[in-house]
Amino acid sequence: MKYKVGVLGATGMVGQKFVQLLANHPWFKITTLMASERRVGKKYGDEVDWIVSSDVPKDVRDIEMSPMDPKYCDADIVFSALPSDVAREVEPKFAKEGFVVASNASAYRMEEDVPLVIPEVNPDHLQLIDVQKRNRGWDGFIVTNPNCTTIMLTITLKPLMDLKLKSVRVATMQALSGAGYPGVPSLAIVDNIIPFIKGEEEKVESEPLKILGRLEGGKVIPADLEISASCHRVPVIDGHLEAVWARFDGNVSVEDVIDAFDSLKPLDLPTSPEKVIVVRSEVDRPQPRLDRDTGNGMSVVVGRLKKVKDNEVRYLVLGHNTVRGAAGASILNAELMIKEGYISQA
Amino acid sequence: MKYKVGVLGATGMVGQKFVQLLANHPWFKITTLMASERRVGKKYGDEVDWIVSSDVPKDVRDIEMSPMDPKYCDADIVFSALPSDVAREVEPKFAKEGFVVASNASAYRMEEDVPLVIPEVNPDHLQLIDVQKRNRGWDGFIVTNPNCTTIMLTITLKPLMDLKLKSVRVATMQALSGAGYPGVPSLAIVDNIIPFIKGEEEKVESEPLKILGRLEGGKVIPADLEISASCHRVPVIDGHLEAVWARFDGNVSVEDVIDAFDSLKPLDLPTSPEKVIVVRSEVDRPQPRLDRDTGNGMSVVVGRLKKVKDNEVRYLVLGHNTVRGAAGASILNAELMIKEGYISQA
Amino acid sequence: MKYKVGVLGATGMVGQKFVQLLANHPWFKITTLMASERRVGKKYGDEVDWIVSSDVPKDVRDIEMSPMDPKYCDADIVFSALPSDVAREVEPKFAKEGFVVASNASAYRMEEDVPLVIPEVNPDHLQLIDVQKRNRGWDGFIVTNPNCTTIMLTITLKPLMDLKLKSVRVATMQALSGAGYPGVPSLAIVDNIIPFIKGEEEKVESEPLKILGRLEGGKVIPADLEISASCHRVPVIDGHLEAVWARFDGNVSVEDVIDAFDSLKPLDLPTSPEKVIVVRSEVDRPQPRLDRDTGNGMSVVVGRLKKVKDNEVRYLVLGHNTVRGAAGASILNAELMIKEGYISQA
Amino acid sequence: MKYKVGVLGATGMVGQKFVQLLANHPWFKITTLMASERRVGKKYGDEVDWIVSSDVPKDVRDIEMSPMDPKYCDADIVFSALPSDVAREVEPKFAKEGFVVASNASAYRMEEDVPLVIPEVNPDHLQLIDVQKRNRGWDGFIVTNPNCTTIMLTITLKPLMDLKLKSVRVATMQALSGAGYPGVPSLAIVDNIIPFIKGEEEKVESEPLKILGRLEGGKVIPADLEISASCHRVPVIDGHLEAVWARFDGNVSVEDVIDAFDSLKPLDLPTSPEKVIVVRSEVDRPQPRLDRDTGNGMSVVVGRLKKVKDNEVRYLVLGHNTVRGAAGASILNAELMIKEGYISQA
Repeated sequence: MKYKVGVLGATGMVGQKFVQLLANHPWFKITTLMASERRVGKKYGDEVDWIVSSDVPKDVRDIEMSPMDPKYCDADIVFSALPSDVAREVEPKFAKEGFVVASNASAYRMEEDVPLVIPEVNPDHLQLIDVQKRNRGWDGFIVTNPNCTTIMLTITLKPLMDLKLKSVRVATMQALSGAGYPGVPSLAIVDNIIPFIKGEEEKVESEPLKILGRLEGGKVIPADLEISASCHRVPVIDGHLEAVWARFDGNVSVEDVIDAFDSLKPLDLPTSPEKVIVVRSEVDRPQPRLDRDTGNGMSVVVGRLKKVKDNEVRYLVLGHNTVRGAAGASILNAELMIKEGYISQA
Repeated sequence: MKYKVGVLGATGMVGQKFVQLLANHPWFKITTLMASERRVGKKYGDEVDWIVSSDVPKDVRDIEMSPMDPKYCDADIVFSALPSDVAREVEPKFAKEGFVVASNASAYRMEEDVPLVIPEVNPDHLQLIDVQKRNRGWDGFIVTNPNCTTIMLTITLKPLMDLKLKSVRVATMQALSGAGYPGVPSLAIVDNIIPFIKGEEEKVESEPLKILGRLEGGKVIPADLEISASCHRVPVIDGHLEAVWARFDGNVSVEDVIDAFDSLKPLDLPTSPEKVIVVRSEVDRPQPRLDRDTGNGMSVVVGRLKKVKDNEVRYLVLGHNTVRGAAGASILNAELMIKEGYISQA
Repeated sequence: MKYKVGVLGATGMVGQKFVQLLANHPWFKITTLMASERRVGKKYGDEVDWIVSSDVPKDVRDIEMSPMDPKYCDADIVFSALPSDVAREVEPKFAKEGFVVASNASAYRMEEDVPLVIPEVNPDHLQLIDVQKRNRGWDGFIVTNPNCTTIMLTITLKPLMDLKLKSVRVATMQALSGAGYPGVPSLAIVDNIIPFIKGEEEKVESEPLKILGRLEGGKVIPADLEISASCHRVPVIDGHLEAVWARFDGNVSVEDVIDAFDSLKPLDLPTSPEKVIVVRSEVDRPQPRLDRDTGNGMSVVVGRLKKVKDNEVRYLVLGHNTVRGAAGASILNAELMIKEGYISQA
Repeated sequence: MKYKVGVLGATGMVGQKFVQLLANHPWFKITTLMASERRVGKKYGDEVDWIVSSDVPKDVRDIEMSPMDPKYCDADIVFSALPSDVAREVEPKFAKEGFVVASNASAYRMEEDVPLVIPEVNPDHLQLIDVQKRNRGWDGFIVTNPNCTTIMLTITLKPLMDLKLKSVRVATMQALSGAGYPGVPSLAIVDNIIPFIKGEEEKVESEPLKILGRLEGGKVIPADLEISASCHRVPVIDGHLEAVWARFDGNVSVEDVIDAFDSLKPLDLPTSPEKVIVVRSEVDRPQPRLDRDTGNGMSVVVGRLKKVKDNEVRYLVLGHNTVRGAAGASILNAELMIKEGYISQA
């Protein structure tokens, strides 16, 4: 029997991606779609300005949208595609009422007792769930996934930690879908780049330290790592590309780095890709349009590895920002929680 | 009386930019346009696939194109927009015959006795001209300007050298016009980024060391600086954007950097901009489409300065790649040579 | 002494274009910039999300924005860049108080006593001003310019009327700036075309009949012409391109059409282009990016004329939608009204 | 047992699409890939500049490319993705040697004894095969599919013929992939439209008359129809959009047209879509990026139907130019020929 799931903020860019990925999911069935007041009571298919594919999935077209209120929500798991400010208000209400909230929002990511999880990187951080429930006296709980840009980067940093990674410089070229819908005006980006994304650099510089941190006595000890990020918006629909300089404490070769990347194994979950990190050897890859769908958008693709100095290596990493970087990340987290026994069916 | 000038490779992207900038130049008059064999004898206006503005400048439309051979060239100065392999063959023939060759090609940039000059940065390197003429027994000589990406970067590095700049990490987002015409296929770049530009990173990592080097006994002692570059092609028509991390030997503040940038003064030449480095304070500038024409495309625009660590500052720099980065650079070099007395009129 | 002018809706796309074109106008001086409540009292330079060039013109940066209320407006002429629904409310208030309103809005275009004018096409329609003032008992009045797509088309239809033009089929490829700012989301238009523009086809099919109509006894008798339009939004920043099939009552040659186009003469006004209709003979022109700025954006460019049948000719027409098609059109109308003595200085 | 197939011009844009569509085809197996001399002997996977998806299909990567010469070709059917001038020389050599040539090239489309076929429109024209073999004394034969723009249009015109269709005006907005690879330079099309495609309008105006013609005594009597086309290249990767005005001899309603479109039934072939013409009712469809993959790119999508006059209706039609408009069209033709018994296995 499938788990009943709801989506908070179902009409936005990430919300649409949740609906698309959940529509044919082996474990999940969409039962509730929640949106802002003015949309409540209207059919999802009529209201949504659907842009992620040709048509809204048949099964959800006629679902009448509900308010963002636990008492109208019939679900075991609630996926949140809410903007941060709204998430801060709404998500706790659901957790309090016993719902499992798998959130893509940034609102609670950095709170001490909220897991910020990438399943292949720090599954053990789910242990914070018990701390959170105890601290807050909630029947349910909130589990978050990182910012889209952080996810691609951190997946590659994880295996490098064993090589004594010390500092990272990363310049990003981020897709339009990362800004939501309507998001970036076309007049602002045609024949142009916008070298600023509000709050992005701060997230990319801080979130990985928590994700790569060590769980100790119910707390996360941040990783000893220093990151500086420069983030830029480019005229690409999907797929964040990142140029990374990784400096180590000691000598590291390109081969060491490739071996490390290959060592990161996928989990046995429905949304897991065959390979977590795909290393390409062509001189001109990864490219957003050609590589973003690798592993159904759940793999990250690495390329152009180059030794810079004895203790420094440069590489590119690309990932699908609304799949591995958002909706797919929350779904993978939910799958992990089920496998780990954190979720029971109503 | 104006100097007579010729253009080698007049029909290409940079060639068109030379023609456009020289058409109304106060000191120069186009007398010879040289192109590949199949175009010789044909009128420039009929042959060129003109894309830099609405129409080919009136005065040059009817010029019949000449072969790339000194004996058909009636000019005091020859500007070269040739691809490197062709330049390697052709440029020396002109220098040998007494022509002043102001070249945008990379062929001779790194040769010991060839000046690689940005007028505001290393005008003194023009002294290599005498060394070159002596070494090679030429009546004329070759003076080069750097690669487009190198120019924007190096203009900002020059004033930082006095702050004990030690190492640089730079990620570039480069315009399509930098690849020439036809250059990048539209199918390759729509909704995409190409994270590779042949030979580019090597140039950006080596040329600045020569430009910022010290002239000593007729030789350039390379600057003590370490650079690593990651270069990417983006769907932008003109304007290279670069994200730079500058690390110093000692403490440096953002204010120090801004003061240094402001200290770089323009020269009194026709093509000089009012300000060499324009520092913008908005959170989202520079942007290629909005800022590339600053100072008629001869200024570089800096923004988003941020302190990373005690000894490291991050910033963005943007410049017009076919003006300050190519044709405009060669023209400014020629203006400087005239002012410095290196060029006499036939 | 310059006429004092105000702009209604000064921060939008067309509003910015008004400000840009008026900043250095020989007859006009911007004294009042009006915007929605939340912007009142703030400096224009701080509030506007300026995207039409590198910087907001110096003179207007510090102008504090006023409410859209006649009593705060110190001007001889008010240019309106308001959306239709707002214009319907606001413009009459200004006309009532004695202001001359030169409007780009569609709200009053089709009203019997409101001139819908293209100076080179139907200057005599300004006579409706007296009718309007009498009808409405206003001290001032409203004069409108047509929809952007209509203007380019109608300028070419005017000279064809003498050749017994009977019907027109037109397919448009319209620029993003025509949708205002923020306007079209980038996610909706990258690698895409949107084949629908609300209300556009109706305007293109009706407005030309009034503009080309005959003034008789204080009324406009619509032209006997039948038009069908299909309108599409394309990923182009500025410049509307239109493919036109013109059918005549009788035999017409391409030469007849070219002669007719050449017969339309410019007026002697500051914003008039040298040539109203520029006919290009290249097989692949007009192109938006190359031709939109012809005549400083005030000329329309025609090309690819072809005989289809004895009584039918096909051609393309291109014009700058925010200059000749919007702000420039209103300004040219104001210049004409001054020349014709309809405007007196306070 | 699968039919062995070869591809002529396998590395180009359409060639890549052939390879992609044939890689997993139930009836066909790629045995021979043919390309220009300089590529002969090299592995397809190493040589091709693959841009239609992330990776070259596994099975064909190691195929060594053969010269375009029948004696090196081991296949029952040869698909041709050659440019017209090359096709004119090469295709007859294969037909002469007994090969079935299913060609996307324009070289032989209009020859009297060469079938120009769209399976759902004029399957009976395959009868020209016998005429062709007799005329030319070939063991094999050439069957062609129309130009990409012609196909989408003609599929919609076929059912309208019964409504006494008399004349058509069509303005096209064509994708970049239609120009092949490298095709349109990015510098020519970013922020631009190119209103000219060599030879395209002539094809769109002539090919439908043959396709919709009546087979009589081994000859095709062209349809009594008059077409005028205006063709434009837009910055879209795949998917041709066409604005059509259809004039009839007599009264026709939008409902009549929709019924006619619905009456065109798919064939029972592997590459046939579920629906040949999909009529969408949204105000803003079809859109290239959202609708081009309908029916795996083999359906054409129609929208925005509107009555213009008693005897005239306007509509939009969209189709995937490299699938239904090229490679898919040739493959569907081959499937039809097999079903009709025109092809025997070696």
